[in-house]
Amino acid sequence: MNYNHIFDQAIDRLHGEGRYRVFIDILRNKGAFPNARCFAGHNGPKPITVWCSNDYLSMGQHPKVVAAMEEALHDVGAGSGGTRNIGGNTHYHIELERELADLHGKDGALLFTSGYVSNDATLSTLGKLLPGCVIFSDELNHASMIAGIRNSGCEKRIWRHNDVAHLEELLAAEAPDVPKLIAFESVYSMDGDVAPIHEVCDLAEKYGALTYLDEVHAVGMYGSRGGGISDRDEAAHRLDIIEGTLGKAFGVMGGYIAADQRIIDCIRSYAPGFIFTTSLSPVLAAGVLAAVKHLKQSSVERDGQQASAAMLKAKFREAGLPVMDSTTHIVPLMVGDPVRAKKISDILLAEYGVYVQPINFPTVPRGTERLRFTPGPSHSEVMMDELTTALVEIWERLELQLSIAA
Amino acid sequence: MNYNHIFDQAIDRLHGEGRYRVFIDILRNKGAFPNARCFAGHNGPKPITVWCSNDYLSMGQHPKVVAAMEEALHDVGAGSGGTRNIGGNTHYHIELERELADLHGKDGALLFTSGYVSNDATLSTLGKLLPGCVIFSDELNHASMIAGIRNSGCEKRIWRHNDVAHLEELLAAEAPDVPKLIAFESVYSMDGDVAPIHEVCDLAEKYGALTYLDEVHAVGMYGSRGGGISDRDEAAHRLDIIEGTLGKAFGVMGGYIAADQRIIDCIRSYAPGFIFTTSLSPVLAAGVLAAVKHLKQSSVERDGQQASAAMLKAKFREAGLPVMDSTTHIVPLMVGDPVRAKKISDILLAEYGVYVQPINFPTVPRGTERLRFTPGPSHSEVMMDELTTALVEIWERLELQLSIAA
Ligand SMILES: Cc1ncc(COP(=O)(O)O)c(C=O)c1O
Ligand SMILES: Cc1ncc(COP(=O)(O)O)c(C=O)c1O
Repeated sequence: MNYNHIFDQAIDRLHGEGRYRVFIDILRNKGAFPNARCFAGHNGPKPITVWCSNDYLSMGQHPKVVAAMEEALHDVGAGSGGTRNIGGNTHYHIELERELADLHGKDGALLFTSGYVSNDATLSTLGKLLPGCVIFSDELNHASMIAGIRNSGCEKRIWRHNDVAHLEELLAAEAPDVPKLIAFESVYSMDGDVAPIHEVCDLAEKYGALTYLDEVHAVGMYGSRGGGISDRDEAAHRLDIIEGTLGKAFGVMGGYIAADQRIIDCIRSYAPGFIFTTSLSPVLAAGVLAAVKHLKQSSVERDGQQASAAMLKAKFREAGLPVMDSTTHIVPLMVGDPVRAKKISDILLAEYGVYVQPINFPTVPRGTERLRFTPGPSHSEVMMDELTTALVEIWERLELQLSIAA
Repeated sequence: MNYNHIFDQAIDRLHGEGRYRVFIDILRNKGAFPNARCFAGHNGPKPITVWCSNDYLSMGQHPKVVAAMEEALHDVGAGSGGTRNIGGNTHYHIELERELADLHGKDGALLFTSGYVSNDATLSTLGKLLPGCVIFSDELNHASMIAGIRNSGCEKRIWRHNDVAHLEELLAAEAPDVPKLIAFESVYSMDGDVAPIHEVCDLAEKYGALTYLDEVHAVGMYGSRGGGISDRDEAAHRLDIIEGTLGKAFGVMGGYIAADQRIIDCIRSYAPGFIFTTSLSPVLAAGVLAAVKHLKQSSVERDGQQASAAMLKAKFREAGLPVMDSTTHIVPLMVGDPVRAKKISDILLAEYGVYVQPINFPTVPRGTERLRFTPGPSHSEVMMDELTTALVEIWERLELQLSIAA
């Protein structure tokens, strides 16, 4: 067996498609985000502006978060030292689960090491606990939900993105006594559009299905307490399971689900991805606890983010840049080609000190490669003007289409 | 559909078998490990001694680790803010991967959010990249390897635990041109025995198989630089992939693989569990970097752990307690019944301030329920004497068998 040959071919395929990924070597400057330092290809670190972070509200540098982590580090140490069952359950984990359950108005919550693991572990375990379950999945669901559904071994039906008529068609085609689970996201992170949660819940009630909502790109950012789109739309009580991350708007790392105690207890007791792994570091748990508490009572960050996003979209549109139809804080520019998207990103970094990663397959479908900007409360209008000017210059240099504003 | 009924039944099954798990609420005291505080069922926190932590060498409270985390927290903030490809690749990640590659004498290494994820993501992706691959798995492999193998969709052959004759039989039964992967662990964490790495590698060479070794319970603890059993036995160069955790002897959280650059590049580029998740917090990466560097040049912790384990085993044996045949730092006492194991553990906590979690199914096979002690450099002889006395008293109280030493 020539294994090397097989591995080489796998890598060559990526080069051939222009989607071999090179990771950029950066360090953010705490307290000065979106400023950062870039280490690769320069003589010493070069200052850059980060436009593609998912630390959406800069909570990763919030004084309360940093102070809480420092305190936990000195109080209990670096790691938990065990799984939740064997030595790794701490007071921080328990408090954080209480806080997250409350955030979503649920009985209980369960922590995982990441949002990815929470989706994979929960969906695969739910599928196994419900004999003959059919899972209805939005076609743009995230890779971690796809993994969980696949690993559940359940039958899967894919409904067209945010298309409730299609979802209903698929639900109606199954027998009433078949267990059903509808899995979807609130904010779709690469397009910035939002799911019709109430309409999906109406169908779930009509057809007796459980609902599972990924709020990874919404928690902390929507609703008066940061409970996500289901908080803003007052739909949380209609959802069986709400899933979120601790690594984006909450600024740290980890993931969770919130649900009624019965479901939490089942996942806690049956999901290998929850059971057989060292629990979240108490340092992280302490930081998230501070972030969630803060964002429950402060809307300054949310308002600042929405204002920044609206301003950047307006500036892009005025300049004729192909900004996609987003109704949220996410600002994607369509490019439609992996090589060109990378080229634009490379020029931005080398010539303008702007860091925005090109988004290519498998993160988005082929032919829809794009640049994805995530303006936040810390991006200034000056930064936006500089960015827009740079993009227009590059668009012209590469002879790309600018739509002339009417 | 009555979903509640199905969930209730799932929980009732656990109660019926006496293996419903209640998580103990504790906080360790940094700088004073194995001392900790227990919060549940007392009036205020109660001091306890932890005997079941996998922070084996107390690195989670090592001054260098704590200082490195504090520095990173203040320098770059709490979280990475993105996936490795999109905004979440930092200088710390790159340096840590270099350090881990060097630890195992490999070209490259790749970080994951946990050891569980590193096993699941790597094995499932390898299996998909190698068409028709057959995976040979030791029967006692960890749940995370089992998940990865299952999720690879490959054919699986299970060889009897550490039985190379059986492994050879299974290898010989496959055609020579079928891709083969042998997956095993170095230290089996619930029994404390060690795999015959060289013999497995001999077979891998003879039958043209790739080798994948989980060193989760060995890295940091064996070999002159802490590279694990493959370091101690000078076998690292014969293994294709070495996997480890950052959450046990290194005291923090996270996981990794080390291998040649070609394999690293394939997993980095194809594994959804690596690609689609927020990268390890730079605070954690910085802490691990300090731990790995320290344990590369210091053997004090390793020697202290081995001395503690030898002493505890001797004391248990002398007292006639059913200590299992471990050749490592792990000291398991066989009980053989989930209800009794929990009872012993409950008495130890309530009456003696000793925390050791009972180990039951699915962590170990039914009928082999046990108590698992992990003495480390910070457990004193006085603590061991107290523990042994307590166990003998409980053993007698519950009318369990003590073997009379000859
Ligand atoms: C929709 C969605 N769900 C889940 C995840 C995974 O969350 P985490 O980064 O915490 O693993 C992501 C992104 O990373 C995501 O975009
Ligand atoms: C053999 C083995 N492999 C992998 C893991 C998972 O490592 P982690 O705790 O870092 O997820 C564990 C235990 O947790 C283990 O015992």
